Amino acid sequence: MVTKSSKNETHADRLAKEQKTISVSQFFERNRHLLGFDNPLKALSTTIKELVDNALDACQEITILPEILVQIQEKDKKNGRYVIIVEDNGPGIVKEQIPKVFAKLLYGSKFSKMQQSRGQQGIGVSASVLYGQLTTGKSSKITSKIGKDKPAHFYELHIDINHNEPEIVQDKIIEWSIKDHGTRVEIELEGKYQRGRLSVEEYVRQTAISNPHAQITFIAPDNEVTKYKRVTEQLPKEPKEIKPHPYGVELGVLIRMFKATQAKTLQHFFTTEFSRVSPQVVKEICKKSGVSPTTKTQSINHQEASNIFDAIKTTKIMAPPTNCLSPITEEILLKGLKKEVTAEFYTSTTRPPTVYRGMPFQIECGFAYGGDLRADELAKLMRFANRVPLQYMQSACAISKATLQTAWKNYGLSQSKGALPSAPIVIAVHIASVWVPFTSESKEAIAHYPEIVKEIKLAIQECGRKLGVYLRRKKRDAETERKKSYIIKYIPHVGEALQEILEITDTQKEKVQKLLKAKFEAPPEEQK
Amino acid sequence: MVTKSSKNETHADRLAKEQKTISVSQFFERNRHLLGFDNPLKALSTTIKELVDNALDACQEITILPEILVQIQEKDKKNGRYVIIVEDNGPGIVKEQIPKVFAKLLYGSKFSKMQQSRGQQGIGVSASVLYGQLTTGKSSKITSKIGKDKPAHFYELHIDINHNEPEIVQDKIIEWSIKDHGTRVEIELEGKYQRGRLSVEEYVRQTAISNPHAQITFIAPDNEVTKYKRVTEQLPKEPKEIKPHPYGVELGVLIRMFKATQAKTLQHFFTTEFSRVSPQVVKEICKKSGVSPTTKTQSINHQEASNIFDAIKTTKIMAPPTNCLSPITEEILLKGLKKEVTAEFYTSTTRPPTVYRGMPFQIECGFAYGGDLRADELAKLMRFANRVPLQYMQSACAISKATLQTAWKNYGLSQSKGALPSAPIVIAVHIASVWVPFTSESKEAIAHYPEIVKEIKLAIQECGRKLGVYLRRKKRDAETERKKSYIIKYIPHVGEALQEILEITDTQKEKVQKLLKAKFEAPPEEQK
Repeated sequence: MVTKSSKNETHADRLAKEQKTISVSQFFERNRHLLGFDNPLKALSTTIKELVDNALDACQEITILPEILVQIQEKDKKNGRYVIIVEDNGPGIVKEQIPKVFAKLLYGSKFSKMQQSRGQQGIGVSASVLYGQLTTGKSSKITSKIGKDKPAHFYELHIDINHNEPEIVQDKIIEWSIKDHGTRVEIELEGKYQRGRLSVEEYVRQTAISNPHAQITFIAPDNEVTKYKRVTEQLPKEPKEIKPHPYGVELGVLIRMFKATQAKTLQHFFTTEFSRVSPQVVKEICKKSGVSPTTKTQSINHQEASNIFDAIKTTKIMAPPTNCLSPITEEILLKGLKKEVTAEFYTSTTRPPTVYRGMPFQIECGFAYGGDLRADELAKLMRFANRVPLQYMQSACAISKATLQTAWKNYGLSQSKGALPSAPIVIAVHIASVWVPFTSESKEAIAHYPEIVKEIKLAIQECGRKLGVYLRRKKRDAETERKKSYIIKYIPHVGEALQEILEITDTQKEKVQKLLKAKFEAPPEEQK
Repeated sequence: MVTKSSKNETHADRLAKEQKTISVSQFFERNRHLLGFDNPLKALSTTIKELVDNALDACQEITILPEILVQIQEKDKKNGRYVIIVEDNGPGIVKEQIPKVFAKLLYGSKFSKMQQSRGQQGIGVSASVLYGQLTTGKSSKITSKIGKDKPAHFYELHIDINHNEPEIVQDKIIEWSIKDHGTRVEIELEGKYQRGRLSVEEYVRQTAISNPHAQITFIAPDNEVTKYKRVTEQLPKEPKEIKPHPYGVELGVLIRMFKATQAKTLQHFFTTEFSRVSPQVVKEICKKSGVSPTTKTQSINHQEASNIFDAIKTTKIMAPPTNCLSPITEEILLKGLKKEVTAEFYTSTTRPPTVYRGMPFQIECGFAYGGDLRADELAKLMRFANRVPLQYMQSACAISKATLQTAWKNYGLSQSKGALPSAPIVIAVHIASVWVPFTSESKEAIAHYPEIVKEIKLAIQECGRKLGVYLRRKKRDAETERKKSYIIKYIPHVGEALQEILEITDTQKEKVQKLLKAKFEAPPEEQK
């Protein structure tokens, strides 16, 4: 049945000619929905998110208070053409790196670092440049300055999609004296701008809540300016980079590490490449696996590696260090909520750090209740990962799962089965981790690891109990108030009755009535 | 606030040193959930799916009836170690190509082809090899033979993850005389094997339904052999490769095409690079955009390109050709269902091809009702895309959406709001397209394009009406049967009454009774 295409050519030969390498840019061009560019509305918001994430990360690198400009310019409303501008006061980018950082996918500095940061894979910003290029054909404009006495470099960049390499359209030195250092990015794209729940405004507002140390200026297409002011000068704790924990490493990865390590012996390998592996732990692993600590790492064969891997699993090793985490903190989260949500009661909590698959993480939760919030709607859930608000795919997220599974009635809120509580409340949940397990590369929802869901529930419960106390007291106060108003109504009658029984004067009667009235009208604390 | 790390080094300089390229293997190692390797259960099933897809695609390339072996060997139950083997009778792969095809991500032959096929991006199989390597440290084994008189090549392959390049562990010629040509892949991995809805068995069974021209032998870990026999010798229609349709092209892509084309003039460009662009259509586009058909493509500037792009949108262009589609067909889908589902009523339909965003697609639907299917459960939905069963993420899929939105009560089935109908029914829906819009790279659910959802609904309705007719007739028949049985009961009395009224003999009475009985017991058709 196999027929030959030419005398000596098999079908396999013919097929071989069609095989070729696909560049990662080509791949993401086709699969842009994987990165959050599914439709014009989401594409616009993803672009802003990626640029703002980068700006905040850049400022964090040099521990400077961020000052960020976010602007959306309308180019052509009919065809949905916008220019997105994001500008920061970060360290800037050296000239030679600018093209690759902005116009080459999978190029970055944070990929192999085990450190808490917003961006990680070196995709987001270049993907935004790629999307702009695909939909408008325009190149993106980058300006960057790395120090006071240094020149500002201006680039117009394009991506060579077939090779995933930057193409420099223009490259010049410009005057940019308003800043000592920083970066400005301009991307023209096809998008859709709207207000409401999934809007850019909402994203910026939530970013201001989780980053109250940042100053953000937002200019909408109609040129309306919104300023999100800094409410704390306190910079987030700088997250430390950590080494992997043995519990999080797979066999194949371990074998690769044996080959790549600088360490000569197994003993040395374990104590330098991992965190929390003491000489005592090495001893135990080696004993269990029957491989000597002095074995040369380069000579370890597959069977030995496999034995070592099995031994790790049954050896008790201290949990990874948690100084790699930088939570918002209870106090600052409260400040952020108070700044952006007008309510009558606020509470927040930061849970102790814990671990999933060898990865440290930490959960925080904050509530804002009552006040201007609407009582006839479902609770509003704000989700954050490494201080970045998550707007899409709420129902797929571990944070939603934990929220829905909480028994809100215990805290005095009404809730239908499987729904968010029906109450005037904002529930904000933050996960900080060196590696947030997103369900997709567009970073919209957190995967359902049981350890993570459990921690989120505990954080919600802590805040819930405080809310419950507040609501019960509020109810009791209202009750007391109601009772008091009854009694006050009867004070004249009481006075008259006393006058009859005790035969006191009118003046005495009035004095008693006045005293009683004063007593009941005093605030609750003084009544005791 | 910016402090300098060394005398002349800015922060930007320091950061620049950490920038580097990330290989696509490193990216997917970290983000394996994007490709369907979230957990051991899914990883095992994804591996088999990728290998079987490849095997079927390979056989289709040379229009041969597929004979496929799928085997799961248990290596170490405690640690969840399995060897996955898939063998086909396809064309084989030429020696030089084997390492790249199996151990380099984003390497393939079908990426830029607009042609209906299962695999497309050159990721799936290499990702399976990568996953096996990560979890077990083992290399994968490939055997391939490209013709009767050709040698069989055996490779053991590893992926150099830092560079996304194959590493050849072993390479030799072996004796493999059982086949004239074909490929065998063995991957050892950490997985979980179980039976039930999300099992490999179910995947293979559904594959047999959508590919009744294939013969599949499945060997489970307990060595139980299941043979899925071929029920048609009719090979699927060979899908043609097509050119893109102007409606599906974005401005940035159009500009890129202008640069890359061999065509010298705009006229020539349009008629060679696109489908359905007649000289008349070119004339209209050129007139609207104010760009002459004789303009040199290389000289077209951004403004002209933008005008041409706008002109395309407002020009009426014939829908793309649909010979690029290869539906299962009504008849073969019915055969497939009858083979694997024991029911009392079957129906199927193939809708005419249609288009979303310039991409042709076609929907098919089949029902199996009653018989051995359980009446006390919800309907079972089988989803297929280019003949591949989709097992995960059912709720996120356009097929589910269309099924839930169908008013099943119209066809005599009971249904709760927002749920699948509650009836003994299997609903199979197939989408064939040159580019199936999956919601993620793990290819588990189809995106909710309105055109697609609408077509699925129409297909379901067509089958639904036929089912409705059957169920109403069945009900009517049952009703008639019930009435008949009453009447038959009274035939003796009728006879006696007649005897009294007409004064007939006993023999005549009995004859009348016998005749009446015969009349009522006849099948419904003869009663008229």
